[in-house]
Amino acid sequence: MMGKKGALKAASLGERGIIDMIRSELDSRGAAQPDPPLPHPDDASAMRLPDGRFLVIKTDMFVRRTDAPRGMRHLSMGWKAITMNVSDMAAKGAMPAAAMVALGVPKGYGAGALRLFFRGISEAARHYGFPVLGGDVGEARDLCASVFLVGYAGSLVKRGGARPGDIIAVTGEFGSTGAAYRILLEGMSAPEPLRRALCRRVFSPRARLREGVALAESGCLSSSMDSSDGLAFTLHSLSKSGSCGFELTSIPVSKAAIDFARIHSIGAEDLALRGGEEYELVVTVPPERWGDAVAAAEAAGGRLIRIGTAVEGSGVRLVSGGVRELPEDGWEHLR
Amino acid sequence: MMGKKGALKAASLGERGIIDMIRSELDSRGAAQPDPPLPHPDDASAMRLPDGRFLVIKTDMFVRRTDAPRGMRHLSMGWKAITMNVSDMAAKGAMPAAAMVALGVPKGYGAGALRLFFRGISEAARHYGFPVLGGDVGEARDLCASVFLVGYAGSLVKRGGARPGDIIAVTGEFGSTGAAYRILLEGMSAPEPLRRALCRRVFSPRARLREGVALAESGCLSSSMDSSDGLAFTLHSLSKSGSCGFELTSIPVSKAAIDFARIHSIGAEDLALRGGEEYELVVTVPPERWGDAVAAAEAAGGRLIRIGTAVEGSGVRLVSGGVRELPEDGWEHLR
Repeated sequence: MMGKKGALKAASLGERGIIDMIRSELDSRGAAQPDPPLPHPDDASAMRLPDGRFLVIKTDMFVRRTDAPRGMRHLSMGWKAITMNVSDMAAKGAMPAAAMVALGVPKGYGAGALRLFFRGISEAARHYGFPVLGGDVGEARDLCASVFLVGYAGSLVKRGGARPGDIIAVTGEFGSTGAAYRILLEGMSAPEPLRRALCRRVFSPRARLREGVALAESGCLSSSMDSSDGLAFTLHSLSKSGSCGFELTSIPVSKAAIDFARIHSIGAEDLALRGGEEYELVVTVPPERWGDAVAAAEAAGGRLIRIGTAVEGSGVRLVSGGVRELPEDGWEHLR
Repeated sequence: MMGKKGALKAASLGERGIIDMIRSELDSRGAAQPDPPLPHPDDASAMRLPDGRFLVIKTDMFVRRTDAPRGMRHLSMGWKAITMNVSDMAAKGAMPAAAMVALGVPKGYGAGALRLFFRGISEAARHYGFPVLGGDVGEARDLCASVFLVGYAGSLVKRGGARPGDIIAVTGEFGSTGAAYRILLEGMSAPEPLRRALCRRVFSPRARLREGVALAESGCLSSSMDSSDGLAFTLHSLSKSGSCGFELTSIPVSKAAIDFARIHSIGAEDLALRGGEEYELVVTVPPERWGDAVAAAEAAGGRLIRIGTAVEGSGVRLVSGGVRELPEDGWEHLR
């Protein structure tokens, strides 16, 4: 796979190619964990503790240039830097215990903006219920922040546990962030109240932490993943990891996304499937546990919306009004 | 302290000014830990666990442009990225349990170089005895890697525990890295074998992990800090945190640094005091525990070299051959 020295560039490997290369290096040098409780690829990493619980750790880097769309304030960026990490912990059923933040900041960056960024980080950490213990500050050419979460879980929900017959469900509606990104990145228009409602989902991200932990503790989930890379991509990942196919009967699209789609004569389901950064959870539930799963989500203040069924085979299909293969439209850095 | 919007820049705050600003933001928003076991400033962050032990976490970002001197190979950069974090854990007496690495990589970066960087990370993690559980890959304009360590400690050694009468000691000799940086950054000359010996200390960094954990477990230390910011700066930090003065009777300078200093007619002690990145530990020991501390360090394969005594008052003085105040010559990013 590797060419001559210096011939192959990071960009041609892509994010996943780099991760594969790193993993092979860790494995071959004896620095990987044998038989990890959350095998790669999964949303977070875990290690079994002597007391039977799991230490769960997660890091994801917020980079302003790629993670903050035009118009996002520094307060929201801080919320997002924390939320994107919490959402992955939530999907595994882990409660974060503490955070660290490694900040990279350009020399000429405004101090007031930086303060607001940390106000967002602080508000978010408090909202989710863990302290920020410390961190590190270094110089960088972009504003970036690697958030590092340490958490604990009594039981873990892997990405790869879906079985034929399982119910596929999500914790909320999709489409608003997809529509908001069309407005923010492509300059598409919307009446002001609609614009505001859509953009709020991008500027005020919230992770489903209570639902995730409650669902994991209920023992009702066969697999779980956070939807931040987009619903279509997430469904494909869960399907591949679980070695089964997915048949979707309905996609819950937010009313705001439907309104936006109608104005522009575009497909609302498309917005929902390719949006990304909704921070909803996508889970599978054995049918006999469905009632308990719904009850657990509701007791945690959330809900569970059934969108389809896992079947023998592979691939993801929409089976409402004819059968269509759902293309995998993930979103990959570095390509 | 903060000026009008955007008026004050990150560079004018400096690394410590930014950290103070972040801390005030965390405190005022309720996101800081009340009564932390390792109060700021210390080498790492900690949280008491229900079982009485401490969760210790540390993150430090390796940035190629500032952390890798000319001539450093990618394998060494990987070792350094891990070692700089392990050294801080070692100073607190914590054994790392797992690491995560958040990588930032420019698009055009050579894939082979990246592989060697992770080979260094893997070798170092294995050397110190913990797995790399996972991480994150993003695009950045510089090669950078935030290493996150999670570890546990039975007892912690703070930065702020030195008391008058305590013995001040270090785990090794100083000066080689200072001399190596004069060669690598300022182009100073040295005969080839000496050059190689000096640069090895920069290119093959090793943290005093076993010594640090053994010394903490022995209960003999009143304070401890890693010397990566330079011996002079470290002594000043320990002195200030402990609210006492330090009188130094001798500075252990490596033979290679003495040889280099002689060739260039410069002060060998100066190289030792202002070098930085030695990754030795600087500790204080109540006199009645000195014998036990030496025994603990030796049982861990290391040693403890007495360099002075803590006294009433403040400041750091050299008291061999007359009394000289030792200026604080720390090394701060972002100025």
